[in-house]
Amino acid sequence: MTGTAQTVPASVVVVGTGLIGTSVALALRELRVSVWLADRDPAAARLAADLGAGLLLADDGVPGGPADVAVLAVPPAAVAGELHAAQARRLARCYTDVASVKELPLAGARALGCDLTSYVPGHPLSGRERSGPAAAKADLFVGRPWVLCPQPGNDEQTILLVTGLAEACGAVPISADAAEHDQWVALVSHAPHVVAAAMAARLEQAPPNALALAGQGLRDVTRIAASGASMWLQILTANAGPAGAVLRAVAADLAEAADALDCLAAGDEGAVKQVADLLERGIGGVGRLPGKHGGPPRGFAPVQVVIPDQPGELARLFQAAGAAGINIEDITIEHSPGLPVGVAELRVRPEEVARLSEALEASGWPVRR
Amino acid sequence: MTGTAQTVPASVVVVGTGLIGTSVALALRELRVSVWLADRDPAAARLAADLGAGLLLADDGVPGGPADVAVLAVPPAAVAGELHAAQARRLARCYTDVASVKELPLAGARALGCDLTSYVPGHPLSGRERSGPAAAKADLFVGRPWVLCPQPGNDEQTILLVTGLAEACGAVPISADAAEHDQWVALVSHAPHVVAAAMAARLEQAPPNALALAGQGLRDVTRIAASGASMWLQILTANAGPAGAVLRAVAADLAEAADALDCLAAGDEGAVKQVADLLERGIGGVGRLPGKHGGPPRGFAPVQVVIPDQPGELARLFQAAGAAGINIEDITIEHSPGLPVGVAELRVRPEEVARLSEALEASGWPVRR
Repeated sequence: MTGTAQTVPASVVVVGTGLIGTSVALALRELRVSVWLADRDPAAARLAADLGAGLLLADDGVPGGPADVAVLAVPPAAVAGELHAAQARRLARCYTDVASVKELPLAGARALGCDLTSYVPGHPLSGRERSGPAAAKADLFVGRPWVLCPQPGNDEQTILLVTGLAEACGAVPISADAAEHDQWVALVSHAPHVVAAAMAARLEQAPPNALALAGQGLRDVTRIAASGASMWLQILTANAGPAGAVLRAVAADLAEAADALDCLAAGDEGAVKQVADLLERGIGGVGRLPGKHGGPPRGFAPVQVVIPDQPGELARLFQAAGAAGINIEDITIEHSPGLPVGVAELRVRPEEVARLSEALEASGWPVRR
Repeated sequence: MTGTAQTVPASVVVVGTGLIGTSVALALRELRVSVWLADRDPAAARLAADLGAGLLLADDGVPGGPADVAVLAVPPAAVAGELHAAQARRLARCYTDVASVKELPLAGARALGCDLTSYVPGHPLSGRERSGPAAAKADLFVGRPWVLCPQPGNDEQTILLVTGLAEACGAVPISADAAEHDQWVALVSHAPHVVAAAMAARLEQAPPNALALAGQGLRDVTRIAASGASMWLQILTANAGPAGAVLRAVAADLAEAADALDCLAAGDEGAVKQVADLLERGIGGVGRLPGKHGGPPRGFAPVQVVIPDQPGELARLFQAAGAAGINIEDITIEHSPGLPVGVAELRVRPEEVARLSEALEASGWPVRR
């Protein structure tokens, strides 16, 4: 067991070599951690081993005694049973899982009489729709959140090792209560999947000419509904309460919007406010999402500059910004094919808009006010 | 007036130089069509003219008499009034519009006593969320459907000219009845926008830690909800009946799913079938969408580079690209909250990927392969 400040585990067993388990193993192998692989499907474990994710775990366990950590990378309903079996075999000093719900495995572990002092439930948010070891990659978790739910009896070393494992995968550990976690993922992951499915379900009977008019918007709204019904059914079943609560609220808003639109269709202009409110709340909600997807990042303001569409011009532009000591948080470039210019929209902290505009204008850039 | 097989109009007036109008104008200018620009906001018309979209329309109309076609690129509720005014000025021989609903402008035109024999209502499906002339591009409509709703009194030449205009923009004309069109776009565009907004609205009050867990799935589901509430309110108001009908059905499916999840949470396993059915219907619906449109810019390939999140780094990156003589066509920056680095995805012509990667690596940039 390592005892350094970093506390990267020296040896890890990965039980379940699907997308997540294999990706964890690949990330650890890049740090030369000893990794042993097991899966109910021997072919999946062999494929992961062939991919360089580690060595196959033998029936008599880890050579030289328990590993530092065992990662149970199995479906939510299977975690408790695997934890119980792994603890009976003394596979590792401490245990974690990667299931996308946290109350269910904990309740199962309690029911089976597992040792909770050596178990830190976990959930890396990988945001990847593919599955299986072949889709695995060592950097799947880089920069992504990894929720850990420390238990009352965990000792310091257990938490350090499991946290170190998440960090070794490049993830950002976030500590949370299990029930709290389940509400969070119901909101940002499980309910959105069902909402996408409900919209997509409308397309089942649509005339082909209607489908021919579909654009990127509809594709984005429905995209996640295309993936693994059986996995999502497991997840939704395992988190039914929190997911149901979010869906009930979405359904109510949509029913109210439908009522308002019926009123509008019947000439009652007063109903427009309800639709406007929902659209505004939607804009507010999207705006709270961190990062650049789904709209301008919160807190950044745009500066638009017309740029010649030729090599080196963006470099000149960024040099001018960098020379002024201003960090460009985001950029989009609008091209007009056939035109020799484009418009770059730089996004910076609002208090830096004036200074950036002045700095760029001083360097001869046409800033659009 | 041209009379060739192609029937590209020789001269076109674009009334309304927003995203759609300016993009139509840019596309026509590439074919050397004479284009005159007008907008209630003179600054918008001037910007479009500056971008090379055409010449400003003078108060005394098109030099040399009516243009072949006038394109009324104004909001749905403004189409009829602009049509009436344009016909009174004899701006063109025939008229079309680009509004995203078709019953409303037609009804308005009838009410104002417009000449419907010279008017072919139209709707190019551009699938773009940004707005304004600066976002316009000549290839906005390439390969996209452009619905036309021929009217009983249209003569052949009128239909040929308006169809030729759509084809000149690279679009694929689809003929439809106005009411049918409005049901189609309610299903594939207007209702999905409200569904996205209803999901996004749930995020308004979400704890920041929940939002930190959001992945690409939620961002995709909610992305379109970020855009122009006032434009969407106009569209939804103008297509309230058909949009409301779709939303009512989605709301009913979601309410049923919420009921089923509540039953599951209470231990009634029988309810799992309802959730499974909705997920399966969603998969079926997504599967009916024809091949991908939109997505990453056509013809460009990505190069991913890890960059420190501090002033001047992007300048250094672009300098390296510019020094290699490579034009960056587009860029997105992924931030990793809590991490001091981000990943920049540069998009370049596919044949330049290798050269850019080598040039960046030679300058010490970590390129992700």
